[in-house]
Amino acid sequence: MKHRHLILSLSATALLAAATSASAALPKYVFFFLGDGMASAQIQATEAYLTTINGGDATFAADLMRPENRLNMTKMPVAGMQTTYDAYALMTDSASSATAFASGLKTKSGVINMDPETQTTCYKSIAELAHESGRKVGVISSVSLDHATPATYYASVTNRGLMNNIGTQLAESGYAFFGGGGLVAPEGPARSGDTDNNIWDLLSTNGYTVLNDRASILSLKAQPMDKVVAINPVLDRSSAMPYAIDRPEGNLSLKEMVEVAIANLEDRPKKRWDKVRGPARNGFFLMVEGGKIDWAGHANDAVASIGDMLDFDAAVGVAIEFASRHPNETLIVVTGDHETGGMTIGHATTAYTAYYDRLLGQKNSYEHFQANQWAEHKAANSETLCAGDAWKAPDNLERDTVMLGLINDVFGMDWADLNVYQKEKLEDAYDKSMCGANDNSADENKLLYGGYEPIVVTITHLLNERASIGWTSYSHTGVPVPLYAQGWASARLAGFYDNTDIAKRLAKIMRLPELPVTKACP
Amino acid sequence: MKHRHLILSLSATALLAAATSASAALPKYVFFFLGDGMASAQIQATEAYLTTINGGDATFAADLMRPENRLNMTKMPVAGMQTTYDAYALMTDSASSATAFASGLKTKSGVINMDPETQTTCYKSIAELAHESGRKVGVISSVSLDHATPATYYASVTNRGLMNNIGTQLAESGYAFFGGGGLVAPEGPARSGDTDNNIWDLLSTNGYTVLNDRASILSLKAQPMDKVVAINPVLDRSSAMPYAIDRPEGNLSLKEMVEVAIANLEDRPKKRWDKVRGPARNGFFLMVEGGKIDWAGHANDAVASIGDMLDFDAAVGVAIEFASRHPNETLIVVTGDHETGGMTIGHATTAYTAYYDRLLGQKNSYEHFQANQWAEHKAANSETLCAGDAWKAPDNLERDTVMLGLINDVFGMDWADLNVYQKEKLEDAYDKSMCGANDNSADENKLLYGGYEPIVVTITHLLNERASIGWTSYSHTGVPVPLYAQGWASARLAGFYDNTDIAKRLAKIMRLPELPVTKACP
Repeated sequence: MKHRHLILSLSATALLAAATSASAALPKYVFFFLGDGMASAQIQATEAYLTTINGGDATFAADLMRPENRLNMTKMPVAGMQTTYDAYALMTDSASSATAFASGLKTKSGVINMDPETQTTCYKSIAELAHESGRKVGVISSVSLDHATPATYYASVTNRGLMNNIGTQLAESGYAFFGGGGLVAPEGPARSGDTDNNIWDLLSTNGYTVLNDRASILSLKAQPMDKVVAINPVLDRSSAMPYAIDRPEGNLSLKEMVEVAIANLEDRPKKRWDKVRGPARNGFFLMVEGGKIDWAGHANDAVASIGDMLDFDAAVGVAIEFASRHPNETLIVVTGDHETGGMTIGHATTAYTAYYDRLLGQKNSYEHFQANQWAEHKAANSETLCAGDAWKAPDNLERDTVMLGLINDVFGMDWADLNVYQKEKLEDAYDKSMCGANDNSADENKLLYGGYEPIVVTITHLLNERASIGWTSYSHTGVPVPLYAQGWASARLAGFYDNTDIAKRLAKIMRLPELPVTKACP
Repeated sequence: MKHRHLILSLSATALLAAATSASAALPKYVFFFLGDGMASAQIQATEAYLTTINGGDATFAADLMRPENRLNMTKMPVAGMQTTYDAYALMTDSASSATAFASGLKTKSGVINMDPETQTTCYKSIAELAHESGRKVGVISSVSLDHATPATYYASVTNRGLMNNIGTQLAESGYAFFGGGGLVAPEGPARSGDTDNNIWDLLSTNGYTVLNDRASILSLKAQPMDKVVAINPVLDRSSAMPYAIDRPEGNLSLKEMVEVAIANLEDRPKKRWDKVRGPARNGFFLMVEGGKIDWAGHANDAVASIGDMLDFDAAVGVAIEFASRHPNETLIVVTGDHETGGMTIGHATTAYTAYYDRLLGQKNSYEHFQANQWAEHKAANSETLCAGDAWKAPDNLERDTVMLGLINDVFGMDWADLNVYQKEKLEDAYDKSMCGANDNSADENKLLYGGYEPIVVTITHLLNERASIGWTSYSHTGVPVPLYAQGWASARLAGFYDNTDIAKRLAKIMRLPELPVTKACP
């Protein structure tokens, strides 16, 4: 018996040694950057724009190839490519694509971490598993924190629209850091018919501190908190951060938010033992979504998209800088969930020539223009201009020199530079937006404007086309999407694979349970 | 001295061993497949179409992911992605992109293997270097053999339009195999002002056999020739193979042409020593271009594009089968040179739903329809229909039930299924094609039709949109393009890089001189 006991002891020691070695053989810090609606076209357009604002010429390879004109992500050593379709759609939704990334599961559009058929089985996200393994978890999004993509990292829900329910799961997640936008439904019922459910109260009950001014959010860098929700002070109507090109004073950029999150999550040398917070020793998992790249894609506004791309990529740069200080412990993954808008790097009207300089005059997003200059101009003029059949005049817009001035001022697009057809398109859109009618068939208007304000979406369509950027849709499209990675075991993310493979490989790299992992539904 | 001599001898032996080992450490058989105009959208559309013709549903991930619904190329283990811009254009030309692949050099649109600034320095292609190293070389294209992409593997010329000059360099290349389309300028002067230069005679003088019937081309499988040009019997007006979906009886598919080329180029067990052809022992380099994927993209005809994609991918399948018989000696690389047409996997009119079944009714390419049904129908009707102001009637096409029948017959598109705006677009295009005029501005017509036959390009636009495929251009676009690889050292082609890096890495793998390599201009 004694002999046998000895053997057992040795085996146990060997097992322990193996376990220790295994536990050491994983990246301590994992960043997952998700550009919503970001595919190859968005990336190439941004690099061409960057080349142009940096004083180069996007038609010269020598300029396009300069390191300062390249995004951080495309300079990473590892590249992959993923198919993005969900269980029942070639053109995925952000809920189902995020479920693929978060829990390694193909599901149905609109569903978050639940099975595609009946929505009765729930799945754990890689962030939940990371949290359970003792890592700190952070979730950042430029849109609201209860929006589909960030939600998928902490919630399971039958429908992404159940945002109060999602908010509840956020408050009960136990994650260390949330940051970016706010909450869409902090006070509604969790499900239709439920009593009201106040997420702010729930966060407080669960030990979260909610910060929503720049100074206190930045103070987290020096004084980290265990559970914090950092919300930018100025949000849009959807509780998202405004587009990067419209950033209001007092707001943090995505880059700044990532800097705060890292400081809040990372291990650091402690002077006094009692200040060491437990889980931090196990590293962190930080998910960062650039959410409005997608929204700009839906609206077919290339410059708004590029602005958020640059903000997103600057946030990637923060992680790269962090990795340079933790070179053997960090893994950074950057990808998109799908393409949005059917963006292309070329247009029939410009053929082989790119004119990215034509984009440089755009100062604000379509959204900002619509809510400000356009809203004011319409309020002041529509009554007069649209009385009777006045709107049927073919040159309403051409005679509205104030409006032409606004277009030139905000978008840098001069009426005199447009061709006959482009002018016709603007005239039609102007009539529709100003007076609610034009000569087009309903089918034509639906194609030309989608659900957007006709004059505004037509301005960005023409501006983009004239720069050599085309759009074909107001929805997501189904083209495969690239992935970039660097650091610990990143080579395992090279190749062409399905979007569900990313979470599966990532879970293996992080030595988490094999995905997908079911759980009791919340 | 004796002792020292011994040491030298040992060193020499060691060096010889190292040299032998180095010489063995390269792939004996290298395939470079180039899909002209093939990027992620073309690949994804083809897989969705394949899923549909195989009886699956392109809206179901489970169907899309079945191995039989995947292309050979996307199942390869290694994936890369390349930027495609040339020296002076974000949207490259096929001459400059092929120069990047062939000689590792960024040059100017239209230029083949010469410097971008002055076109005075010439560069050797990787195929020339392979030839010089003793490998057999084959060049296959579905377009004419003197077209820009194949030309770049054997010629240096200031302008891709100098096709007789290019043909001369083909005849003087010494390569073992050319196959696919024919020659555009076999009898013109090499340069403007030169005397006529007959390429057929030159080929004969240089020991080439020109075959142009199916039986004799296929006979190469059993009786290989040292220098052969295998031209399909039926070519289009540009001396290219007709679109795969229009393939005339007697023509070889790209797949069959690759089978012939391999049999002609490969080493095989010889019964009699005197039949061993020298260079074959050193393996081969075979370049295969799917050239009309691009032409279908220019014309915005998705089904013609997909047909040539499937033919191209079947040719890739032949190489994969060959590799399974030579597993440790073969490298296969598949990529595209640029995207063409701004194809997207989604459209405003179909939003999140794909309808690839709507493509299944298209029987022939736009080109075949235009040259046959349309040409005949127009000849029979235009005089009557276009007399006076008759073409101004808003329902010309709707009343032309024969034409509606032709559209339904060739494209499977039923007038009754179209919405008001789609009908308007067809009516306008019909008037323009039938009678040479419509109500649109010249700018609108240019955007709607490019340089194509209005009614024909409008049919494919609508058919494609209704299936959820969009187009934004009639030209090349600048989106990065994927690469797939398998076999010997293929992992060195993983990652995100410039198109010039592919040739550079390939030359290293094949142990050829470092690219770019200059030469005396021909």
